[in-house]
Amino acid sequence: MVEIAILGFGTVGSGVAEVIDRNQKSIRRDFPVGIHVKYILDLRDFPDSPYADRVVHDIHTIIDDPEVEVVCETMGGKHPAYEFSRMALEAGKSVCTSNKELVDAIGGELAVIAKQHNCSYLFEASVGGGIPILRPLRTSFSQEFITDVMGILNGTTNYILTKMEKEGLSFETALRQAQDNGYAEKNPEADIEGYDPCRKIAILASLVTGGNVKFQQVPCEGITKIDTDDFRYAASLHRVVKLLGVCHHDQESDKVYVRTAPYLVPEGHPLYSVSDVYNAVLVHGNMVGDLMFYGSGAGKLPTASAVVSDVIECAWNRGRNVDIGLHNTDADLGDPESVKDVFFVRMDASEKDRAQMLFGGHVQEVKAEGVNGEFAFLTPEMTDREFTEKAAEFETLKKSIRLLQG
Amino acid sequence: MVEIAILGFGTVGSGVAEVIDRNQKSIRRDFPVGIHVKYILDLRDFPDSPYADRVVHDIHTIIDDPEVEVVCETMGGKHPAYEFSRMALEAGKSVCTSNKELVDAIGGELAVIAKQHNCSYLFEASVGGGIPILRPLRTSFSQEFITDVMGILNGTTNYILTKMEKEGLSFETALRQAQDNGYAEKNPEADIEGYDPCRKIAILASLVTGGNVKFQQVPCEGITKIDTDDFRYAASLHRVVKLLGVCHHDQESDKVYVRTAPYLVPEGHPLYSVSDVYNAVLVHGNMVGDLMFYGSGAGKLPTASAVVSDVIECAWNRGRNVDIGLHNTDADLGDPESVKDVFFVRMDASEKDRAQMLFGGHVQEVKAEGVNGEFAFLTPEMTDREFTEKAAEFETLKKSIRLLQG
Repeated sequence: MVEIAILGFGTVGSGVAEVIDRNQKSIRRDFPVGIHVKYILDLRDFPDSPYADRVVHDIHTIIDDPEVEVVCETMGGKHPAYEFSRMALEAGKSVCTSNKELVDAIGGELAVIAKQHNCSYLFEASVGGGIPILRPLRTSFSQEFITDVMGILNGTTNYILTKMEKEGLSFETALRQAQDNGYAEKNPEADIEGYDPCRKIAILASLVTGGNVKFQQVPCEGITKIDTDDFRYAASLHRVVKLLGVCHHDQESDKVYVRTAPYLVPEGHPLYSVSDVYNAVLVHGNMVGDLMFYGSGAGKLPTASAVVSDVIECAWNRGRNVDIGLHNTDADLGDPESVKDVFFVRMDASEKDRAQMLFGGHVQEVKAEGVNGEFAFLTPEMTDREFTEKAAEFETLKKSIRLLQG
Repeated sequence: MVEIAILGFGTVGSGVAEVIDRNQKSIRRDFPVGIHVKYILDLRDFPDSPYADRVVHDIHTIIDDPEVEVVCETMGGKHPAYEFSRMALEAGKSVCTSNKELVDAIGGELAVIAKQHNCSYLFEASVGGGIPILRPLRTSFSQEFITDVMGILNGTTNYILTKMEKEGLSFETALRQAQDNGYAEKNPEADIEGYDPCRKIAILASLVTGGNVKFQQVPCEGITKIDTDDFRYAASLHRVVKLLGVCHHDQESDKVYVRTAPYLVPEGHPLYSVSDVYNAVLVHGNMVGDLMFYGSGAGKLPTASAVVSDVIECAWNRGRNVDIGLHNTDADLGDPESVKDVFFVRMDASEKDRAQMLFGGHVQEVKAEGVNGEFAFLTPEMTDREFTEKAAEFETLKKSIRLLQG
């Protein structure tokens, strides 16, 4: 029996216990030794829980017990998750986590510590919830040069955007529905401002390039400025608004370009029909072409399932480090302002002539049913820097959204 | 350097050499030792190829060379692929293959031989081309009870069906276009009769259940009887016709139900918008819910890329067996005729009253624009056996297609 400990008995932590209990038979088919939850660390007690007798309040009980081989860090936040993870790794215990904030901020350091102590630091659940994406990146694509990774990486915002698109709800109403349904937190900032998907694309970019990309280095735009008219315009372009994390790894320069922002995704694109709380990650390899991984990007059991898949991998690799590809060196970041895009722009109708002059005669006007008094258009392809300079000339510019190519 | 040999220098075999050559730098980032093609076995010579000096005609040159660690079997067919694979495994050389016919027929036996000789028999490329699906099934889902695996597993037929749906082409014209574009072979039987996707769902079913499911045990229906009117009816049901391999693993009885047939897939279902030559595999786990893996299901480089991913896994696991989960025991197959489905049925209009009587008053009539003289309807949910018995009563019954649920 492989003994494990769960740090933090919240949604994901209790899910980990549930997956292990309910699917012990499945686990033993592939991993006959089985897995057992020996300790649960939490500040609280859970007297009515079947796990009541395993709850402990002192991390040292876990660290000092040589029987514990794997620790699931499902506390979230940086502290004390960092200190506890570090202590576990230094004691030779592998750590599996869903904590994207910690992975993004200090994951490279923890991965190095794991290597030094012949154990592993794994975090499949931190990106895409239950979707297996980090492990396939490591185990199935060594023979590929991955030029692009992009995806719908946040279920809450995808739910809100889907409601706005399909039911014509305002952003505020859709957000409230998401909160009522438990998909959005009371303080929804991390989701709607794009911080959560931004952390995830930073992690993906780090794994794809082999150098660390940090959240703070990635331009990040959320969905708070998206309105229902944007969806009307999008429909007339046969597109839909999606919040994407995008990462392009240039094969010639080896530089990596990362961004989180709303994009207009064209009909027929694999990400176009990913709706509701579902997530999807698109990977483009120079040999294999486009691949997409789709599934539940959040939720107690899917996320917990991904944590347990890491636990089993650690258990299989007892005494040896599983290198997921996170390193403690910096990625060679390209200048995101040098990336070329086509921009969809909305401004006051009175600016039409000036806009056509300044953006060149080649702007393509976009009309939407029921939206008046505006001039909306697509720019020619231009760099982010060039666009920002021109856009600054227009006080009435109320919106710009990038077009996703393909 | 890990030395490998390629058996059969056709499309996939030459693709393997190309992937290794072009992406040697990517390979060495993750696997610093690198991979080198030492031999290519073929009946032909390739005097103008850069590989001319590595071509050999005698399998013993490869088997007897202790430097060769991994053999890529990209010959196809059962013989001599089986004998050569067996010789390699018995010599302790791992075998990686795209040969679904061999994997389906004798893969369990070869997997056992690999285990006995501390090497591996891997076949990621045999299902879904470049899509990583077999490795994720093994490495990411041990904690799941997988209740369903289904998918669009054949690019040729999906291309034909997409052309029929979107351009209204007849089956014959669409097939000819597929042949002209190199997507279908001159003898397209294995694709259009469903044998190819049937082999693939048999392999998936074997891995999911841990017991062998053979091609011959799986009811198999192709797309040769699908006509453009079926797509008209499908559209009025907000569905589309797709050729699916489906596998249901019942958690209570542990029995597995497998079938290959055309299905009417509803709008909003993840498989609905998988078009052209793309493939997709949907996996349902009891904890993680629905997941989908999407990508190029065929083609020289995607398929070769999957073979090389197996080569790298073998190289990492030098001297030890990677158990992909194929065993030499039989699966507990359920009776496919006991599975309940809703059937879409077309027959002569004159049979309407009799059909309503025989199928119960609850049949739901289906109309399609421009199709006359027929009575088309959906049956109540019934077992396959019950449907077959009732259907036999109607001489003018020209079509029945199952509805995919969800």
